[in-house]
Amino acid sequence: MNEERIHNFSPGPGVLFEEVLENAQRELLNWKNTGMSILELNHRTSEFHELLLSTKSKIRILAKIPEYFEILFLQGGATQVFSSISLNFCDETDTVDYIVNGYWSEFAANEAKKNANVHISNDFNGYTSCPEQSELHILKESKYVHYCSNETIHGLEFQYVPDVGNIPLICDMSSNFLSKPIDNIEKYGMIYAGCHKNVGPAGLVIAIIRPDMFNKRNKRNIPLLMDFTELMKNNSMLNTPPVFNIYMAELTFMKLLNLGGLQIIQQENRKKSLLLYDTIDGSNNFYSYKMKYKDRSRMNVPFMLKNTCLEEEFIKQAGVCGLKGLKGHSQVGHCRASLYNAMSLEGVRKLVKFMKWFQIQNE
Amino acid sequence: MNEERIHNFSPGPGVLFEEVLENAQRELLNWKNTGMSILELNHRTSEFHELLLSTKSKIRILAKIPEYFEILFLQGGATQVFSSISLNFCDETDTVDYIVNGYWSEFAANEAKKNANVHISNDFNGYTSCPEQSELHILKESKYVHYCSNETIHGLEFQYVPDVGNIPLICDMSSNFLSKPIDNIEKYGMIYAGCHKNVGPAGLVIAIIRPDMFNKRNKRNIPLLMDFTELMKNNSMLNTPPVFNIYMAELTFMKLLNLGGLQIIQQENRKKSLLLYDTIDGSNNFYSYKMKYKDRSRMNVPFMLKNTCLEEEFIKQAGVCGLKGLKGHSQVGHCRASLYNAMSLEGVRKLVKFMKWFQIQNE
Repeated sequence: MNEERIHNFSPGPGVLFEEVLENAQRELLNWKNTGMSILELNHRTSEFHELLLSTKSKIRILAKIPEYFEILFLQGGATQVFSSISLNFCDETDTVDYIVNGYWSEFAANEAKKNANVHISNDFNGYTSCPEQSELHILKESKYVHYCSNETIHGLEFQYVPDVGNIPLICDMSSNFLSKPIDNIEKYGMIYAGCHKNVGPAGLVIAIIRPDMFNKRNKRNIPLLMDFTELMKNNSMLNTPPVFNIYMAELTFMKLLNLGGLQIIQQENRKKSLLLYDTIDGSNNFYSYKMKYKDRSRMNVPFMLKNTCLEEEFIKQAGVCGLKGLKGHSQVGHCRASLYNAMSLEGVRKLVKFMKWFQIQNE
Repeated sequence: MNEERIHNFSPGPGVLFEEVLENAQRELLNWKNTGMSILELNHRTSEFHELLLSTKSKIRILAKIPEYFEILFLQGGATQVFSSISLNFCDETDTVDYIVNGYWSEFAANEAKKNANVHISNDFNGYTSCPEQSELHILKESKYVHYCSNETIHGLEFQYVPDVGNIPLICDMSSNFLSKPIDNIEKYGMIYAGCHKNVGPAGLVIAIIRPDMFNKRNKRNIPLLMDFTELMKNNSMLNTPPVFNIYMAELTFMKLLNLGGLQIIQQENRKKSLLLYDTIDGSNNFYSYKMKYKDRSRMNVPFMLKNTCLEEEFIKQAGVCGLKGLKGHSQVGHCRASLYNAMSLEGVRKLVKFMKWFQIQNE
């Protein structure tokens, strides 16, 4: 690792692969001998068309996405998709189901309420676990069921794909996308992910949509840029797409393929999160977390110190040691370490070493 | 100029200042000694907060934007703003006025029709001129008047600010933003611009909004990411903003300030476009354009060859000579040279030299 660089545990935008950054840096003034920067590349050129094809083809291989699924590149982040989903997939009088177990799934449900009758599929007491299959009460008339596979703020990750029968399943995978293989992909009507966690810089959403999902609505008049059918027909180019973000995504997909694919990545991610969780579990409650053991996220680990007054100092001293981005989200406070694909095992080793040292100093 | 680089006449994304690209390249792995890339910078950090402030402050100085105007950073391109404007600034039964004199102003009007009664303010026969002030028929009950100050595809640029009395004026300045000072800024309710022409890479829109414009609508329920009032209240951070694009914008604003500001830039742009127009005008009709003389755009120069069969060869041979991006938009065909701020006078000199040579070869 470049010695000037720190370990970045930010929840996103966050750490990217150094090799990807080096590639981007190397060709930033002259991309592929075109004599121009990728930042200057017009989206109507054959060069961009090839880049788009290559990006799609790489993610298909990487995530084993069947040919019949469409891949869209969207703008506005997952938050905008929260609105688009209900606008695209139902009419105003329709009912839709939302599994809610954290900040983001609740946010998605609230946006949908503007455009449909939202039924919450599960009971919940605080955001400390994922509901079990047996706890899901899906209305059979629902047009789709939405869930968030990994709650970034609350550190909760679904360990199974909800079984919702023949109702299309829609998943916000923003914070664990490409961190492991996608199980049962054919069960999903749509998968989407904001790319500023495991893929690249902020400004791109990737959506994977099953063809039967298009043209689901009847009469709704929706903003053009939110219309998935129009986007699909226009190859994600209703207007100028975020060219650079697509380029960065392609570099990251290539890197993940070179590393051996998502099975290998999954093993690495498991190792990294276990190392951190074991350190917390073995700290005699100096460090702790609220999540139910079985639902702990491998990507985002929110934790607290027994003496919460020490948290500010913990974050500050970690920063001095080159461990940055450890502040918890303003909604929940405390600390959080995000362990996305590009976070190295070495980085997590340094973090747990620091945590043990800090505990000794302050116990 | 770096010898490997070509001259890029693309309509956007297009040419950026080489110095801006070199700055971005230099610090791409370690931004301002933070030990991380700007691509990895979390938007909830104090560092990003400073960057946002600095970007706003620089554009205020550059474009002489009064303090009472809000500056928003939006996603989804100007096309998405086409939808947001009517959703934010009127109710469904309200009437709004659209001046239509090209592809983009027509597009904006069509999006508004989904959400309001749209009155077209002018008659037009083909898109070859801008309407005169006396040709504008604005309904006095209109909630706003929208126009596009520079039609990128048709090469038409307003040389005056329409007088619409006390009705708020809204302007899409995407393709001539920061190419000259903004006249009579206080007359505008809102100015907006997609940034992938004169500012940076694709993925950012800058909107400048007068405070009386917020909360104009009554009961409309709109997608959160399109709600200007919510965006304003949250400092453009309802969700993760496109950090890198904001960084690139700041670098460009700094460059424009260092060049002497928008008066100087305007003089340069006038010189560049005059050189090209004079070459076309002096070509004995070998080259020609359709725009009315007084409305010719300084930014985008669509032109054709007398023998249109030669156009493909013209574009190809220009490419061989390092002059790229000269293909006209698919809506109108032929050729087009875009002369944004970052296009050098040297680049335009090479282009006109090539044009004269090509004429001699093919006359």
